[in-house]
Amino acid sequence: MSIAAYYPIFDKLTPDEQQLLQNSAVRRTVPAGMLLHNGSEECMGLLLICSGQLRAYITSDEGREITLYRLFDRDICLLSASCVMSDIRFALMITAEKETDLWVIPPYIYKALMERSAVAANYSNALMSSRFTDVMWLLEQIMWKSMDKRLAAFLLEESTLEGTQSLKITHEQIANHMGTAREVVTRMLKYFQTENMVTLTRGTIHITDPDKLETLAE
Amino acid sequence: MSIAAYYPIFDKLTPDEQQLLQNSAVRRTVPAGMLLHNGSEECMGLLLICSGQLRAYITSDEGREITLYRLFDRDICLLSASCVMSDIRFALMITAEKETDLWVIPPYIYKALMERSAVAANYSNALMSSRFTDVMWLLEQIMWKSMDKRLAAFLLEESTLEGTQSLKITHEQIANHMGTAREVVTRMLKYFQTENMVTLTRGTIHITDPDKLETLAE
Repeated sequence: MSIAAYYPIFDKLTPDEQQLLQNSAVRRTVPAGMLLHNGSEECMGLLLICSGQLRAYITSDEGREITLYRLFDRDICLLSASCVMSDIRFALMITAEKETDLWVIPPYIYKALMERSAVAANYSNALMSSRFTDVMWLLEQIMWKSMDKRLAAFLLEESTLEGTQSLKITHEQIANHMGTAREVVTRMLKYFQTENMVTLTRGTIHITDPDKLETLAE
Repeated sequence: MSIAAYYPIFDKLTPDEQQLLQNSAVRRTVPAGMLLHNGSEECMGLLLICSGQLRAYITSDEGREITLYRLFDRDICLLSASCVMSDIRFALMITAEKETDLWVIPPYIYKALMERSAVAANYSNALMSSRFTDVMWLLEQIMWKSMDKRLAAFLLEESTLEGTQSLKITHEQIANHMGTAREVVTRMLKYFQTENMVTLTRGTIHITDPDKLETLAE
């Protein structure tokens, strides 16, 4: 499908602007694990996700991580074009969590489009508002919600994303999503096991009582 | 001074748009302590601060608070116009911390301006990027920085803002800025006192060794 199908405001652009996008956008497939954006060092541009999964996160000087949000089919990744937004002054990392098929609008093209089109600029605003909302949701979780509730919610989310109750994920990976230490995750999972919500085997967390996890997460 | 002096892109707008702003913007003085924005319940519009101090914060169901950022002379408060941005889905509170003199651009006027002017829409984008950056900075502080360093930084910031080393602020107020419990602040301040960085008297925190606090904050 053409880029028109993945950029919701395509029909509202002028024929010139549509032509510009169609001529400059590049279709790419990136492998799972690929780093797409690394603070200020990379600037791929606007990414329109056809299928796949991206993860946006930040890291500490000591190498700790926390996931800010994830993007899925038909989502648009704005902050991979952060170089064209001079007031974005934080270093975000974006990786492909699964093989991802996407349209790339190069940064200088996207900048030119925003400068001439109020529609495109307002749509950028809407995208930024969505990501800002994601981060505010995360901040509220961190501030007001205990780690056990956050972990329960994370396991249920992973289960939905992967379509299975047997999660192949390490305690270290979970810690990096949640911005905590591996030991904290291990201790909490053992507690979940004693409460009969999960069973732990090497490399796998099996959710045995999703309803009980759900109740905890709420 | 007219609104032109407080809206940095005023000169880049068309004469019609400039006229629209000049005819619709209202100059107001709000008293210290006044709640200007309360989640989705109020929508004052874009606020251009001539002089004064605003505080943006969020609250938990249990009434805990954390300060997201503050705005000062010549800053622009965008999220008080959040009703015109449909993808902002978080409940922010904004209060005047000091008597504040400001220009108010009503939300429907601001929406109309953004829709017709790419310049205005891109400037909205820049404002949102700045606030997003403020929140990311806070998130990083919360995630990677210990409470003693955050408290040291807060005391120094307050001292700069108020132009004094004798801070008239309660432990409860500090806790509400930092998103923690009063007891945590009290305990930490007592530790700072034993380390000869502050002296505590009823209602006042006196900074006795700003350099030592500075070293701690870094």
